[in-house]
Amino acid sequence: MSEIKGITPRDVDFAKWYTDVVKQAGLVDYSSVKGSMIICPYGYAIWEQMQKVLDEEFKKTGHENVQMPMLIPESLLNVEKEHVSGFAPEVAWVTYGGSEKLEERLCIRPTSEVLFCDYYKKIIKSYRDLPKLYNQWCTILRWEKTTRPFLRSREILWQEGHTMHRTEEEAREETLRMLHIYEDFQKNYLAIPVLVGKKTEKEKFAGAVASYSLEAMMYDGVALQNGTSHYFGQDFAKAFKIEFLDKDNTLKTPYQTSWGVTTRMIGALIMVHGDDRGLVIPPNIAPIKVDIIPIGEVSDAKEKIIEELRKRDISFVCDEANKTPGYKFSDAEVKGYPVRIEIGKRDLEQNEVTIVRRDTLEKIKCSIDEVGNTLENLFVDIQNNLYNRAKVRRDSMIYEANNWEEFSDIALHKKGFIKANWCGSIECETKIKDEFSMKSRCLIEDEKINTKCVVCGKEAKYRLYFGKQY
Amino acid sequence: MSEIKGITPRDVDFAKWYTDVVKQAGLVDYSSVKGSMIICPYGYAIWEQMQKVLDEEFKKTGHENVQMPMLIPESLLNVEKEHVSGFAPEVAWVTYGGSEKLEERLCIRPTSEVLFCDYYKKIIKSYRDLPKLYNQWCTILRWEKTTRPFLRSREILWQEGHTMHRTEEEAREETLRMLHIYEDFQKNYLAIPVLVGKKTEKEKFAGAVASYSLEAMMYDGVALQNGTSHYFGQDFAKAFKIEFLDKDNTLKTPYQTSWGVTTRMIGALIMVHGDDRGLVIPPNIAPIKVDIIPIGEVSDAKEKIIEELRKRDISFVCDEANKTPGYKFSDAEVKGYPVRIEIGKRDLEQNEVTIVRRDTLEKIKCSIDEVGNTLENLFVDIQNNLYNRAKVRRDSMIYEANNWEEFSDIALHKKGFIKANWCGSIECETKIKDEFSMKSRCLIEDEKINTKCVVCGKEAKYRLYFGKQY
Repeated sequence: MSEIKGITPRDVDFAKWYTDVVKQAGLVDYSSVKGSMIICPYGYAIWEQMQKVLDEEFKKTGHENVQMPMLIPESLLNVEKEHVSGFAPEVAWVTYGGSEKLEERLCIRPTSEVLFCDYYKKIIKSYRDLPKLYNQWCTILRWEKTTRPFLRSREILWQEGHTMHRTEEEAREETLRMLHIYEDFQKNYLAIPVLVGKKTEKEKFAGAVASYSLEAMMYDGVALQNGTSHYFGQDFAKAFKIEFLDKDNTLKTPYQTSWGVTTRMIGALIMVHGDDRGLVIPPNIAPIKVDIIPIGEVSDAKEKIIEELRKRDISFVCDEANKTPGYKFSDAEVKGYPVRIEIGKRDLEQNEVTIVRRDTLEKIKCSIDEVGNTLENLFVDIQNNLYNRAKVRRDSMIYEANNWEEFSDIALHKKGFIKANWCGSIECETKIKDEFSMKSRCLIEDEKINTKCVVCGKEAKYRLYFGKQY
Repeated sequence: MSEIKGITPRDVDFAKWYTDVVKQAGLVDYSSVKGSMIICPYGYAIWEQMQKVLDEEFKKTGHENVQMPMLIPESLLNVEKEHVSGFAPEVAWVTYGGSEKLEERLCIRPTSEVLFCDYYKKIIKSYRDLPKLYNQWCTILRWEKTTRPFLRSREILWQEGHTMHRTEEEAREETLRMLHIYEDFQKNYLAIPVLVGKKTEKEKFAGAVASYSLEAMMYDGVALQNGTSHYFGQDFAKAFKIEFLDKDNTLKTPYQTSWGVTTRMIGALIMVHGDDRGLVIPPNIAPIKVDIIPIGEVSDAKEKIIEELRKRDISFVCDEANKTPGYKFSDAEVKGYPVRIEIGKRDLEQNEVTIVRRDTLEKIKCSIDEVGNTLENLFVDIQNNLYNRAKVRRDSMIYEANNWEEFSDIALHKKGFIKANWCGSIECETKIKDEFSMKSRCLIEDEKINTKCVVCGKEAKYRLYFGKQY
């Protein structure tokens, strides 16, 4: 067991703080395989929690899991032109099988649209075959040059939903349904407020008609795109010649969506809630909710508490390592367990233990008989507090700019997002990116307004959010 | 929805029967990516059931899930000599990242011993760091020339446990512990009897000191190796220079195991229990236990039964497609749902429904109020019946040969396994393989005996099982 080393303070060097936390909390480790990371037990356990909740939501809404091949022949990747031009520069190519050179090279999937389309072409013949609502949990690979744990890495663990529908309306509904499942999940489980909206033409997914994203703001004011949902229209389906016989006995082309979230969400958890002591995991997603720390000979009280937690199905660890209490408190804080319970002899004289919540570090004296109820109330309170705290902070870092001067001033002197009116032209969007390294995040369609574009001064069509990004 | 086509009878052409069943039950489909298959929703749902049960067993026994990189640099694969010579001929090589030729080529993992060792070298420093009990759920890739769904394919979904221990004794215990977890799982969930024993030197895993396997017999008498557990001793650890400071303050080398099962288990399920009508899934592993088939206007009874199944958490589908009852019965049989419930008006006059068990096709009239209890009793009965039936059949196809003449006679005229005394020499084992295409399955160490080798007539040391294999 390695010692807990110092964590660089968050306000001193945020990037260093981040890598200190992921490493010392035991989320990831570096591999000697360049560009790849190892997801350690605690990091993987968080991902399993995320998978469990989302998988249940997907199934409730009628989706089925499947497993597609990992390798894509070059000719198949080439079928949809916009898509291949977006992905070809960043895939890994297999050219040999054993000692034999392949006739056609194969890439490791960077995403699986073409594999699903290739399959859908085979199985969709009639309107009775629609909708097809498939999802896949897998790893994908993108040949990134610079990598950061969870945020940018060659291998990504994710899920990718790929669906086909009879009508445009159904497909558009599906696109938004899944977007809102992600939104609810991030709010209710990750305690992360997200802006949810449409990507601009410039920023949309390669091959999509419309892309929607969830944009979270990290502690440093930088955006993390934390999930996307795409409406493809019929472009892929036409490229793959997918047709079905409709109710009216004519051949039609179906409408498509895809949507996905990745282990990036763990990066967001860290950078939204973490502090100088380490991780802070919201109770609703924590694989371990309680760290029990016995101090001295307190086995009766310990057993009683363990029994109570088991009865209520509250996940816990009990830290009986040969270390000082101080070390154990720090370890509980680095790992971000929602609460720790310190069982000490002095408290026991009053039949009490000390519960420490990770979000506020507040210490609560609690009668042993009340531990179960107290914890369950605390979990609700911590979950709400984390969300509200993140939202207040996020909202305080969203600025509004009404003209170029204001925009420049905020972009140069503030951290966070800028909300501005925009004419809809790619030139104006690009100018902001070039001047301030701020890409557009997403546009909120409800927020259409009638004023002037913050860049060109022409009539504005949209309210668009801008921000630097991970 | 495609029509159910005929299934080739099992006794006419077993290979054709198998592919008909996997395809028509909706377990897999062929991909246009050569050598790869698509696991369809129903096939993947069976795999999810397997994962759920096994993952819980692994966690109960202290194992933690992690995720290692998918790509292995050639130099890393080369570290352990026996291992690389076993795997190098059958890996896929990545040579380009985007448009850039790689300095060192990378293979897609065919198994992850070297990745775990590389990581263990970094994190194991003291006896306090031991044991390390890691497991990984992932896909691996082996460049197979000929493929069959679930049995032999380029991509394999599996789990691989990789553990490190302070002492040889602990590591050997772990090897057998996991072997017996697999055995219990196959018996209690898959209803498959397995021979469990040690592989010979000739058949052991590349790099292992001792390999143990679970050998199931398919309906056609052919063996399917349905899981393995390996004891590695210190060979990999020495090759990777993994050392720890022991309690006595000296540097020592740890002892290693690995163990895995794959989607092959689905192939075994099909070929052990399936029949001319399709799959037969044991209730304890069935993702869907009941198929409700309403015939005519019976919605009150249907709702009552659905409510009862929900209350008892019994998984079901309700087939309300616009098809004939006969079609639906066939569909339920192809998919191997443990029971179907036919709700018809005539039965309802007596307040009854008809329950049909898939294993025996027996029809049971059952009062609506008794459906829940009847089903729960039936599930136990079907599970036991499937196991016992498979065991009786398996046992009837294990023959004993006391000399070469007997061995030849059985090998040429019977289907199944042959149990024979063996001197322990690789020559005798090879002779049997060359003459009869029968590899040794495993040796049961308890069955050591004092008689003559069935091949050379010299003193026998072991009882060894032989059989053709998938």
